[in-house]
Amino acid sequence: VDYQHVQVPFEITLWIMLASLAKIGFHLYNKLPSVVPESCLLIFVGLIMGGIIYGLNDKSPPVMDSDIFFLYLLPPIVLDAGYFMPSRPFFENIGTILLYAVVGTIWNVFGIGFSLYGICQVKAFHLQDVSLLHNLLFGSLIAAVDPVAVLAVFEEIHVNEKLHILVFGESLLNDAVTVVLYKLFRSFCEMPTIKTVDIFAGVGKFFVVGLGGVLVGLIFGMTAAFTTRFTKDIRVIEPLFVFLYSYLSYLTAEMFHLSGIVAIIACAMGMKRYVEANISLKSHTTVKYFMKMWSSVSDTLIFIFLGVSTIGENHEWNWPYICFTVIFCLIWRALGVLVLTFFVNRFHVNTITGKDQFIIAYGGLRGAICFSLVFLLPDFHRKKLFIAATTVVILFTVFIQGMTIRPLVDLLAVKRKRESAPTVGEQIHIRFLDHLLAGIEDISGHWGQYYWKDKLEYFNSKYLQKILLREYDQPKSSIVLLYEKLERKHAIELAEAGQLGHAPSHPSLLCSCFLSSNKKTVIMDKTLEDTLNTDVLENIQEILARNLYRIRRTGPAYNRHTLPGETEPVEHAKEILILRHRSL
Amino acid sequence: VDYQHVQVPFEITLWIMLASLAKIGFHLYNKLPSVVPESCLLIFVGLIMGGIIYGLNDKSPPVMDSDIFFLYLLPPIVLDAGYFMPSRPFFENIGTILLYAVVGTIWNVFGIGFSLYGICQVKAFHLQDVSLLHNLLFGSLIAAVDPVAVLAVFEEIHVNEKLHILVFGESLLNDAVTVVLYKLFRSFCEMPTIKTVDIFAGVGKFFVVGLGGVLVGLIFGMTAAFTTRFTKDIRVIEPLFVFLYSYLSYLTAEMFHLSGIVAIIACAMGMKRYVEANISLKSHTTVKYFMKMWSSVSDTLIFIFLGVSTIGENHEWNWPYICFTVIFCLIWRALGVLVLTFFVNRFHVNTITGKDQFIIAYGGLRGAICFSLVFLLPDFHRKKLFIAATTVVILFTVFIQGMTIRPLVDLLAVKRKRESAPTVGEQIHIRFLDHLLAGIEDISGHWGQYYWKDKLEYFNSKYLQKILLREYDQPKSSIVLLYEKLERKHAIELAEAGQLGHAPSHPSLLCSCFLSSNKKTVIMDKTLEDTLNTDVLENIQEILARNLYRIRRTGPAYNRHTLPGETEPVEHAKEILILRHRSL
Repeated sequence: VDYQHVQVPFEITLWIMLASLAKIGFHLYNKLPSVVPESCLLIFVGLIMGGIIYGLNDKSPPVMDSDIFFLYLLPPIVLDAGYFMPSRPFFENIGTILLYAVVGTIWNVFGIGFSLYGICQVKAFHLQDVSLLHNLLFGSLIAAVDPVAVLAVFEEIHVNEKLHILVFGESLLNDAVTVVLYKLFRSFCEMPTIKTVDIFAGVGKFFVVGLGGVLVGLIFGMTAAFTTRFTKDIRVIEPLFVFLYSYLSYLTAEMFHLSGIVAIIACAMGMKRYVEANISLKSHTTVKYFMKMWSSVSDTLIFIFLGVSTIGENHEWNWPYICFTVIFCLIWRALGVLVLTFFVNRFHVNTITGKDQFIIAYGGLRGAICFSLVFLLPDFHRKKLFIAATTVVILFTVFIQGMTIRPLVDLLAVKRKRESAPTVGEQIHIRFLDHLLAGIEDISGHWGQYYWKDKLEYFNSKYLQKILLREYDQPKSSIVLLYEKLERKHAIELAEAGQLGHAPSHPSLLCSCFLSSNKKTVIMDKTLEDTLNTDVLENIQEILARNLYRIRRTGPAYNRHTLPGETEPVEHAKEILILRHRSL
Repeated sequence: VDYQHVQVPFEITLWIMLASLAKIGFHLYNKLPSVVPESCLLIFVGLIMGGIIYGLNDKSPPVMDSDIFFLYLLPPIVLDAGYFMPSRPFFENIGTILLYAVVGTIWNVFGIGFSLYGICQVKAFHLQDVSLLHNLLFGSLIAAVDPVAVLAVFEEIHVNEKLHILVFGESLLNDAVTVVLYKLFRSFCEMPTIKTVDIFAGVGKFFVVGLGGVLVGLIFGMTAAFTTRFTKDIRVIEPLFVFLYSYLSYLTAEMFHLSGIVAIIACAMGMKRYVEANISLKSHTTVKYFMKMWSSVSDTLIFIFLGVSTIGENHEWNWPYICFTVIFCLIWRALGVLVLTFFVNRFHVNTITGKDQFIIAYGGLRGAICFSLVFLLPDFHRKKLFIAATTVVILFTVFIQGMTIRPLVDLLAVKRKRESAPTVGEQIHIRFLDHLLAGIEDISGHWGQYYWKDKLEYFNSKYLQKILLREYDQPKSSIVLLYEKLERKHAIELAEAGQLGHAPSHPSLLCSCFLSSNKKTVIMDKTLEDTLNTDVLENIQEILARNLYRIRRTGPAYNRHTLPGETEPVEHAKEILILRHRSL
């Protein structure tokens, strides 16, 4: 037996296999996942595995390598999150999200850091040798909410769209802040004296790290879109480019000490629209499917490794410090959310309710990012204490908070996600209002959200599309595309129901139904023609048209492990059949 | 800039990116790939890259690591080859393929080894220090036809099915022989004396290595099929199992010094049927698409690396030895094919023509496997000579033979692959004849090919399907499945042509058309009922039914880089439309 030779790929494959089999195992017993989140079960599997390894070898099981985590396990999850990010709620709440991610995280870091320093002054706890800087460094790594843990829990509890995007968006974008603060404090720890200049340089870095990440991401995203213009003859490698470019954006950002997470999200969100238009339908299915698969496996591996790494002798169990860490994490986050939301609510009509605030504060789960960061700390005599505290915080948030959040959501009757996709009429009206508001903003000279959106759309159709899309010379009208798509689905449904032969098909009725709703809009547009000029009108029509095409896509697409469209067909078929019967 | 940190994944991603971009580049100029095979172009790109690296660094560019090749680049290609292997021609010609692969390869190894040893005795060439054993060792690595190189060239020249499977099958299955002979001679080189026992042990090893590989492959294939029984609730990780299990079969076989290539092919061919039935349609698309993509990228990388590794100072240019190697490779292969085919033709009705023999001999391309093996040789003073000779043989076969084989196929008017898929009628008759022959074999007591096939089919439906398939309790009749599939395609075609609304659809006509052909078979069966018992009849019906389902799948599925089904829809649509018009 020559095990040495194949060891590396063999063990990697076995770990992935274990993760996949564990997933299958949970789903065989349907009751289990409905009570306990999958992340908890996976950590539990990891704990058992770790215990076995520990028992057999009589030494600590291997700890998850930070490099492996940051270079190989995290990117697929973030890519998946970015690619399937619901862009409308994200951009609508971008201000609030940034406030939570930047100000909130800083608040938490300093709050936790200073209050832990206070605890260290209590002589009975024997912690006087932990300096303020070390406490702040610890605060910077423990304060950040973890996107992987948040996704794993929130995708199962189905809260409303806005609440979901607030917690999830914060967990993604706080990466820039965490990276800066963590590196800042770590370099301060190694410096003999700290000058005021260094502190100001640190503040400046926020913008460089965050905006630099966005820039790197967009550059790679646009290049990816541009590349897929030329893949018409070799469809088979199209999916590759989506993965390669987004991974390159992540690595490049990491290389320049920018925020890799922000870069990959910008890349995915930037390229999605153009890539989708360029690549074939089968390529797109493959891209979506593989992204889901990959992120699902990464996610599983991360939680199992978390469990395995917990076992062992890397910990220093100073209970006062650990307990106060957990308490401070909870208190400072709750306070931060309260204060920030107070300001947010003053400037918004659509306020964040008290219940929502509670879920935002309670949903601040910690996960594998903290864990990897604490192992990356330079060696000093209290590192094992920090590792122990981090482990307990992660287990506390994932197990206690993760398992109780669903009952709490039920108990508080937090507004849930609407189960049904918004109707065509609703969507048309939303988009129409958007456009009206853009016009009003334009006339009143207020450069608000809608104004910029409109301008971006104009820039996109005028320049970007022509460069990045293959068939820019003859882009099919989106309404025609939607009609074709619905027709195709309708036909399949009919064929599968065996009705294609017996009942005469009347897609023309269906068609007329959609066209009439379209006609109405055209009439609405006509009445507006007096007040708005033709350019804006064309714009409205275009956006309405694009929107019509997107309707079916913005369905209940939040669960990370099911593909949008998987459950749709049945609903669609129903809708189509109802429409048909009605018109008959 | 922290390049160190991201170096490994960054450079891997960049290499893959380069390979993919090179592929796009070739396809932008349509004329180029029609004259020069892609493999040549890629080696050329590699040579240029190698030259640049050599020029800039002033030292030899890095050589392709044998471990990387055998552990990461080769498996995806072999998996793809095994999964899309046309099983009927393969099993029909298995005897001939094995004869070429086993006896032919041994013939080549000893032929080349001994004649090169003869050359070494010529004093003028200064080669007296190369021993017979070293020459045989060199022969064992240079004799093996390379599946990657063969696939890359043969998929572009579209020779007939039988010729293709003979060359390609040989190149895959000779792996077992190559592995054994190579390891045998290498260990002989290190032994002080060689006993007769060792030689017999070597002969015994053939069977262990080959059959062991098949066994390992089948075990993993069956496990994979069994696992996919339980993935109904988490469709998203289904494709993963196909890749994981086949990779594990390869690694396990390598670990036990068995033939990994044989194992992965057995695994892929074994699981395909059951996995396809268990997983969802989208998962299956993803599996197929990703397999194609992966093998295509691996293939590209291998040829580029081959080019890069050629540049440098690893060579000892003893031209007599190198030239005679090329000549002997050609001569011994031609002789081997002639002699073996003589015996094969004596026992077969469907003989291999002279033209076919020429193409089989001429299509014996060498590639990356030889190249990796020669670098794996233990260090001795003439290793650089062997490397030089191997490089020249590879470049000669890939460039000269690869580029001239297409004109030669045209010139000789070698029978081409039929462009159209066989008709339903044809397939029914072929399968019917198979069954008749099985019956005749059974009655006459001759246990031939058809008899065993029939038994295997019986075993499969009686036991294997019940264990491995999810819906074994209610397997839909295959004719129903085919009908549904055609209906679906038909409906889509109609919808896309915009005819769903205007023309009344008449799938019932289409249906009756297929059912009538089915009815005919039933009538045929009725007339047979007197001569055959009911068991056999049921068997016939079952096989006919299964076959009906498979018809569309056994289309022109040889080109490795297009997915079966990509070009089909148009033909199908045409056929369906013609049928419809005719029946109207």
